Amino acid sequence: MTANEIIRKKRNGETLSSDEMKFFIDGYVRGDIPDYQMSAFLMATYFRGMNTKETAEFTRLMLHSGDVVDLSNIPGLKVDKHSTGGVGDKISLPLAPIVAACGVPVPMISGRGLGHTGGTLDKLESIAGFRTNLSIDEYKKVIAEIGLVMIGQTSEIAPADKKMYALRDVTATVECIPLIAGSIMSKKLAEGIDALVLDVKTGRGAFMATYEKSVELAQALVDIGTSFGKETIGFITNMNQPLGYAIGNWNEIVESIECLKGKGPNDIMELTYVLSGAMVWLGKRADSLVHGIEQSKKVVANGSAYEKFLQLVERQGGDVTFLEHPEKYPASKYRHEIRSEKSGYITAIDSLELGLTGITLGAGRTKVDDIIDPKAGINLTKKTGDAVVRGDVLAVFSTDKLSSVDSAAQRILQAFGIGDTQPAPSPLIFSTVDKFGIHKFSL
Amino acid sequence: MTANEIIRKKRNGETLSSDEMKFFIDGYVRGDIPDYQMSAFLMATYFRGMNTKETAEFTRLMLHSGDVVDLSNIPGLKVDKHSTGGVGDKISLPLAPIVAACGVPVPMISGRGLGHTGGTLDKLESIAGFRTNLSIDEYKKVIAEIGLVMIGQTSEIAPADKKMYALRDVTATVECIPLIAGSIMSKKLAEGIDALVLDVKTGRGAFMATYEKSVELAQALVDIGTSFGKETIGFITNMNQPLGYAIGNWNEIVESIECLKGKGPNDIMELTYVLSGAMVWLGKRADSLVHGIEQSKKVVANGSAYEKFLQLVERQGGDVTFLEHPEKYPASKYRHEIRSEKSGYITAIDSLELGLTGITLGAGRTKVDDIIDPKAGINLTKKTGDAVVRGDVLAVFSTDKLSSVDSAAQRILQAFGIGDTQPAPSPLIFSTVDKFGIHKFSL
Repeated sequence: MTANEIIRKKRNGETLSSDEMKFFIDGYVRGDIPDYQMSAFLMATYFRGMNTKETAEFTRLMLHSGDVVDLSNIPGLKVDKHSTGGVGDKISLPLAPIVAACGVPVPMISGRGLGHTGGTLDKLESIAGFRTNLSIDEYKKVIAEIGLVMIGQTSEIAPADKKMYALRDVTATVECIPLIAGSIMSKKLAEGIDALVLDVKTGRGAFMATYEKSVELAQALVDIGTSFGKETIGFITNMNQPLGYAIGNWNEIVESIECLKGKGPNDIMELTYVLSGAMVWLGKRADSLVHGIEQSKKVVANGSAYEKFLQLVERQGGDVTFLEHPEKYPASKYRHEIRSEKSGYITAIDSLELGLTGITLGAGRTKVDDIIDPKAGINLTKKTGDAVVRGDVLAVFSTDKLSSVDSAAQRILQAFGIGDTQPAPSPLIFSTVDKFGIHKFSL
Repeated sequence: MTANEIIRKKRNGETLSSDEMKFFIDGYVRGDIPDYQMSAFLMATYFRGMNTKETAEFTRLMLHSGDVVDLSNIPGLKVDKHSTGGVGDKISLPLAPIVAACGVPVPMISGRGLGHTGGTLDKLESIAGFRTNLSIDEYKKVIAEIGLVMIGQTSEIAPADKKMYALRDVTATVECIPLIAGSIMSKKLAEGIDALVLDVKTGRGAFMATYEKSVELAQALVDIGTSFGKETIGFITNMNQPLGYAIGNWNEIVESIECLKGKGPNDIMELTYVLSGAMVWLGKRADSLVHGIEQSKKVVANGSAYEKFLQLVERQGGDVTFLEHPEKYPASKYRHEIRSEKSGYITAIDSLELGLTGITLGAGRTKVDDIIDPKAGINLTKKTGDAVVRGDVLAVFSTDKLSSVDSAAQRILQAFGIGDTQPAPSPLIFSTVDKFGIHKFSL
């Protein structure tokens, strides 16, 4: 068996055996197989794909390249959620405390902002003092104590994925479903979960722009989860306009607190309840999705979800002062209102363009080591379907970067489509994918 | 412009501009673009191909990565031949002296044996003292003096190809027509030629096993030659049985001398005359292919082609004693006859299998630094279509490696197909490819 033979087999569209996968992935992690053979393999995989068995094996090898956390001594089924990333997607922030408040432990390892989409870690770090870089031991301690923990990727988790992701990033091999699925699932399976809910975004602001590709990714993710004996449900959700009104970091924390108090925007409330309901159901604290949603609404109404969030922030070193008094948070140097130049209805809001504009304001990164300005961001005042009159404020943005103001003002204005006819409402959740297949979503 | 963007464009099937090709290839040669990005690019090219303009640009960049020999001070049109490689393919050895004897200078830079196919250099080096490692200056001096020179690849010629070929070899990206065509043509165009004849082998013992792929390669090669303003003609020729009777190194020299004396096997004589005729025609020493063949036959008949070969060997330091008295050449320790186990007609001779068996005898390499035994090889006594009686000798092989004898005897016997019916003769030359397209071959 040689690396060259394995690359050739994949190139020719043949199926690789478990031994061949092991030889190649383990050899790469050890450094016996150089980057140039891995990148040829990755490109061949881009064109030829992997079947379900190969993808599961690929994930297993990446998973076992590092530590797999054992949470079996913590009572109950541990359930996490993963989102493929969207603009204004702060769902994890209200969702995790809700699920934990329902009695289902949530061990969550999150990522940073990537491209035009934000990251949970960056949002949490806009809370002064919040530590996302806990060790695996601290992580286990926090989840055992409060039933909830939110940290960042550590070097012990799936190092093969880390090495391979850096290579994919510079060899045009990111956009490949089995590679994406293996990367996501190897990290999630390492957390110590028993079940997983996936939010696979589709549309203009999503990683997967077409519905078909999003379903394909959801199926690959569910197949992997299933092959590891973990209940996994995927939701295909709409990313054609931003989620909620806030795009940024601190402003998304503020909007999340509103949600935890039951006063968040309709789309965020709806999506949070469905996903948290599914997690409570998979965690066996409810006997159906509908029941899980009811449980979720109850812990919001009685304040225990918000309390859980405050508990998490305090336990991970964050300062809760600003959470209770958001008006005291430092303000950006520049604050600019975008006003509509015509009257009509909002027909579209380009979430990709708003995500990219947010980066120019300081809310995201163009390079790995860019420093994020937590205050920077965009707050929409209108959403798709809303009526507007010429001169109405469509959005407000905040930044410390004077040089970005003019261009951002223009881009944000142009991100709004305005027409004479009110568009038909578009569903927020299109479908679900589980081990039995794909189902149109309805409650 | 980044390397990643260029890989992505190629991956997506878009056409690369000249600037993009230049950025990528020059950057690779300089070392700015690492192997892992090149191997991803090569694999994307394997799947997406290159159009005619990209392939020409790719070739131009590889060509200009090193020295391009200027032979313009040598009178006449310089013409070379390239073969994609076959078993028993010693055509260059009689052909080059014939063409030179007709007054067309032949500057030939050849390769070594690759896989199951032999290499002109290895054959020449079976002549004691023959130097194939001339410098470019010596190369120019020899062609100026005697109108003929045969050397090996030097480090000054197309270093980009050398670096890229080594990478392709270990990343399963060898079998890709634009990459093969660019590799061949960058080296040939660097020789200082004005025109080129190509022998593209097809069939069991060829690099391209199917007729369609061979035509595709011939067209890619002709397109490149044409785009550089060099007359180029490709011949698609039969490699379903070995050429001639000798497979090895020294035994192929002996058969070549027979050819130069007009007494070689029919297939070798025919193919040599057609290819040399084409070269004499392209070199404007004949006004048609048929006339070029007549000229070729004349220089064989009058002994001047053989004289030219002796002159070449002497000029490049070789000992002509054994050429004049082949019977004095050292003999192998083991000489083994293969006898037919049944009577009938030879229906097939597996040239791939004979090429591979030749390697085990010492006539070829499995690793780059293996040392070739020039005495080792196989001499057929029967060819496809011949009648055989049980007990007739089919072939004789020679080796110093006792351990290879039994297996070789078995493999060679099994390489012969014997049936009751005499097979219809198969053409030696199927078609020609030139800038106007593909033509069925006939004289």
